[in-house]
Amino acid sequence: MRVLTGLQPSGDLHIGNYFGAIKPMIEAQNENEMFIFIANYHAMTSSQEGKNLRTNTLKAAAAFLSLGINPQKSIFWLQSDVKEVVELYWILSQFTPMGLLERAHSYKDKIAKGLNASHGLFSYPVLMAADILLFDSQIVPVGKDQIQHVEIARDIALKVNNTWGEIFTLPQAKINEEVAVVVGTDGAKMSKSYKNTIDIFADEKTLKKQISTITTDSTPLEEPKNWQNCKIFSLAKLFLNSEEQEELKKRYEKGAEGYGHFKIFLNEIINAYFKEAKEKYENFLANPQELEFYLEQGANKARKIAKEKMQKIYEKIGL
Amino acid sequence: MRVLTGLQPSGDLHIGNYFGAIKPMIEAQNENEMFIFIANYHAMTSSQEGKNLRTNTLKAAAAFLSLGINPQKSIFWLQSDVKEVVELYWILSQFTPMGLLERAHSYKDKIAKGLNASHGLFSYPVLMAADILLFDSQIVPVGKDQIQHVEIARDIALKVNNTWGEIFTLPQAKINEEVAVVVGTDGAKMSKSYKNTIDIFADEKTLKKQISTITTDSTPLEEPKNWQNCKIFSLAKLFLNSEEQEELKKRYEKGAEGYGHFKIFLNEIINAYFKEAKEKYENFLANPQELEFYLEQGANKARKIAKEKMQKIYEKIGL
Repeated sequence: MRVLTGLQPSGDLHIGNYFGAIKPMIEAQNENEMFIFIANYHAMTSSQEGKNLRTNTLKAAAAFLSLGINPQKSIFWLQSDVKEVVELYWILSQFTPMGLLERAHSYKDKIAKGLNASHGLFSYPVLMAADILLFDSQIVPVGKDQIQHVEIARDIALKVNNTWGEIFTLPQAKINEEVAVVVGTDGAKMSKSYKNTIDIFADEKTLKKQISTITTDSTPLEEPKNWQNCKIFSLAKLFLNSEEQEELKKRYEKGAEGYGHFKIFLNEIINAYFKEAKEKYENFLANPQELEFYLEQGANKARKIAKEKMQKIYEKIGL
Repeated sequence: MRVLTGLQPSGDLHIGNYFGAIKPMIEAQNENEMFIFIANYHAMTSSQEGKNLRTNTLKAAAAFLSLGINPQKSIFWLQSDVKEVVELYWILSQFTPMGLLERAHSYKDKIAKGLNASHGLFSYPVLMAADILLFDSQIVPVGKDQIQHVEIARDIALKVNNTWGEIFTLPQAKINEEVAVVVGTDGAKMSKSYKNTIDIFADEKTLKKQISTITTDSTPLEEPKNWQNCKIFSLAKLFLNSEEQEELKKRYEKGAEGYGHFKIFLNEIINAYFKEAKEKYENFLANPQELEFYLEQGANKARKIAKEKMQKIYEKIGL
């Protein structure tokens, strides 16, 4: 299946992102034809502060490559490197009834939350439709808040196909049933907006600090502890095989170690798990040429496909 | 002054277009730095029928070049050949409050006239702002219905400049006070929608037919005639110097000739006036390579300026 994923360059990734979305995406590379891009055009709808966007875009690209996007297997590029998408956005706008956009929940929600009612925010679903349709994407994995946008892309594709014949593949949303709901340091779902994250690429000091904020009960050091309700255990479990999990359970049940010890253990296994990715990440940011090479390579592959598609569209629209 | 004009590829041009808008534009080339493009992206808002758009675009380009746009003096290109404009359209959308577009009369008028309320029609003013701002246009000659769109472009430019510093030149609308209001064959203002036109590039038979429909009074052939109220005279006047006008007046006052004679005379002077342009036009359409050469040359010049401007914008937005 051809699967398209747009990733927001929205700053530091945490282990909730990793187990909830990134790891499944990395694994999906084995069975699918994956098209993955950093959505830097979309990111402009929330901030027009260039310096942040540039830094976040490069950091995101470095992060995803380090974590396992394989640029030989998958096509991975920056959205703005394939400019055909904005031209298609204009063309698709002719097939987009205003009512379709006016009914979009996501726009209304964002306005309700205090974002400016800009035309960019309003027309975002049309650009997303262009992203999807340009590459004949079959499957678009999305969060629940984005299902309607995939439906809008589908509606637009149907309208174009009715006018011009079978030009576009009709995309299907696939809801990201989060493989693992990862709890944050306070026990709620891990999320940047709750400030309860443990970040993948945090430096040692920050990581230590984030782990230190995990709340625990007040069982004394020498007494047996309940791993079932312990957030440290829930987090550690993600990194351990079943044998290792049993061992950790025993340490909880035995008593003699305090939560401080388990936090140190968690810190160690997180470090070990992301050690290689972290090194790659630091290396990409220190030597941007390699990063740029992969991005250029990906953009070239994506652009070639985009150009072929646009030729067919030019025929139909008269360009 | 740097003057930007977007021309709609909307089919056959008539002598009302010529004396009202084209001739002044041609003459303005002597004193201004003219940027003139065929607005084929804009044309998509009213029709998605590719075959028509392609034909009309080429015909329009051939027509304007034949009538005197000088591709050495002015920059003349097809809008879709400089794709930077759609990227800028997306970027400007972030600075465009929805209210600004919702207040646009032209959109409301078009909906009232029965056009589909598409997102393309709605967001047209943002693309027009991109056309204008990409080239640092100072003056934008427009009809009255388009003044608001230039104001929207100005508002967007102000908003960007307030955020990023002086990036864009603030454009000024210049109302096309039609130099000559040209009457149509029925005495109303010549207009395609009134079906009272005399077309510039009509074949001989069509031209004859169009002239034959000019309504006159019923003064008999041998009697003196009133040139003041005669549409044939009004039209002929456009092509004659004052001496020639006096001669024609005398023929009216003398009597002995009927309106049929004056129609033949009008036919002759129209033919003579557009003879050279018509030959060029036919030649362009028969040998599209020459036409394409000029369009490519123009696109290259426009693209160079657009790319330089976009570099500055990329810096600011973080691309």
